[in-house]
Amino acid sequence: MVVAEVSGAWRVRTIRLTLAYDGTAYVGWQRQAQGVSIQGLIETALTRVEGAPVAVAGAGRTDAGVHARGQVASARVSTALDMPTLRRALNANLPPDIRVIGLDVAPDQFHARFDAQGKVYEYWIWQSAVMPPHLRTWCWHIRRPLDAGAMDRAARMLEGAHDFAAFQATRSDVTTTTRTIREARVTSEPPPTGPWGGALTPFSGHAIVVRAEADGFLRHMVRAIVGTLVEIGDGTRRAESIPEVLKARDRTLAGPTAPAHGLVLVRVDYPHVAPAVRTL
Amino acid sequence: MVVAEVSGAWRVRTIRLTLAYDGTAYVGWQRQAQGVSIQGLIETALTRVEGAPVAVAGAGRTDAGVHARGQVASARVSTALDMPTLRRALNANLPPDIRVIGLDVAPDQFHARFDAQGKVYEYWIWQSAVMPPHLRTWCWHIRRPLDAGAMDRAARMLEGAHDFAAFQATRSDVTTTTRTIREARVTSEPPPTGPWGGALTPFSGHAIVVRAEADGFLRHMVRAIVGTLVEIGDGTRRAESIPEVLKARDRTLAGPTAPAHGLVLVRVDYPHVAPAVRTL
Repeated sequence: MVVAEVSGAWRVRTIRLTLAYDGTAYVGWQRQAQGVSIQGLIETALTRVEGAPVAVAGAGRTDAGVHARGQVASARVSTALDMPTLRRALNANLPPDIRVIGLDVAPDQFHARFDAQGKVYEYWIWQSAVMPPHLRTWCWHIRRPLDAGAMDRAARMLEGAHDFAAFQATRSDVTTTTRTIREARVTSEPPPTGPWGGALTPFSGHAIVVRAEADGFLRHMVRAIVGTLVEIGDGTRRAESIPEVLKARDRTLAGPTAPAHGLVLVRVDYPHVAPAVRTL
Repeated sequence: MVVAEVSGAWRVRTIRLTLAYDGTAYVGWQRQAQGVSIQGLIETALTRVEGAPVAVAGAGRTDAGVHARGQVASARVSTALDMPTLRRALNANLPPDIRVIGLDVAPDQFHARFDAQGKVYEYWIWQSAVMPPHLRTWCWHIRRPLDAGAMDRAARMLEGAHDFAAFQATRSDVTTTTRTIREARVTSEPPPTGPWGGALTPFSGHAIVVRAEADGFLRHMVRAIVGTLVEIGDGTRRAESIPEVLKARDRTLAGPTAPAHGLVLVRVDYPHVAPAVRTL
């Protein structure tokens, strides 16, 4: 291989990519028969830089419209480029709504999905009469008042190891529906700051954020939990129904699935592996 | 008129609309021969609610890609709807990237453009190696370091009444190029908070915000000022060149026009008129 001889650095390495994306335009993380996927675009960019087909494994298979600020993916590449240069090359080959924000060399056997020992998701709800334009693709707009305290009390009842069959997408095909939620919290947050106004914003309103950390999540699990917590927040359901719903393992007893666009994959944790580079 | 008899409230009124929009998808505020304008969509929504053609006057003719969180527009309508109901009806007839955030009845002769006595614009620059997806349509991405202090010192030299001919779009057709900048400031701002991460954001970086308040602005004036301030910030121009450029009245002596998408119309001020409703 001429490349190896010239660079003196050629060998197959496993890389770990940390990704942020605005999921609005995509069919989701995973390649689909129809539509543009984030995985597909990452693979196309890597394949272009590598000059040969590269497959990418993602930690979380985020649905259409779901965002990420800390998705993790792994791939095996033989490029001789150093990591900062490879990151720039990948970003140059990706649309601006998908960014490689961290890139490092991982242990050879590292696999983003199989090695993940935990994930953190946030779900953002925006409460006000009018939905600010800049939040329209990032938050679920709810006009009616929600009791964040009641939602938080209910969220804590989900903590621990439970069978979450009542909170997964129908017709899911998994070996076990037991997951351990390490922490589930609901908080009120002030308006986002930034070009759209921050504290100066004319949009009276506030965010209600559901944050959940678990060893893993079933398909639609966070969104089903959020749909249920919102029913508790608006008073149509009692917080005490949570243990009953868990016990019944019946999807129809939980609340509706919240819209995808309020959900963001915050972080993926791995054992014995330092966090991906956060500073660029 | 049956409507008048039924409602008992029918008469022609002047309304003042306060608007927020994401300008990304539009040819700008003003109706154009080609493309979709924000003015056109507001007029279409008002016309639909009114049942007859309605013309709308905007305070600032923001360019394609420029945003607003406090654009003001006026119109004459005869609808009997109360203001909260009319606001809801308009928002129901507008795309989600344009929102009526305030609506009130104005004095009969009120005109959003002719009565404006001042405007505030902000221009947002994002400094980091990688552009976060959620800021891509709201900030100008600049990788090289900028000296915000030097930019602020230069901005203050623009304050006062000056002939800003060097800072307007070429081939502009205005009676006078003298404007009074009441305040011009450059500040460093932390990363925006929100669903995309805030303080937790993996994107090291910060915003540099140029904020200018004037009795009025020439076409492209803020963007030409920002392009010039960035040259001062990156060391390719001295702050002391500002008075020379003002005096020469020569567009070619100022810096390039900064991209439209970093600019946001923050506020429009009127004499003897209370601020538009800010709470919804």
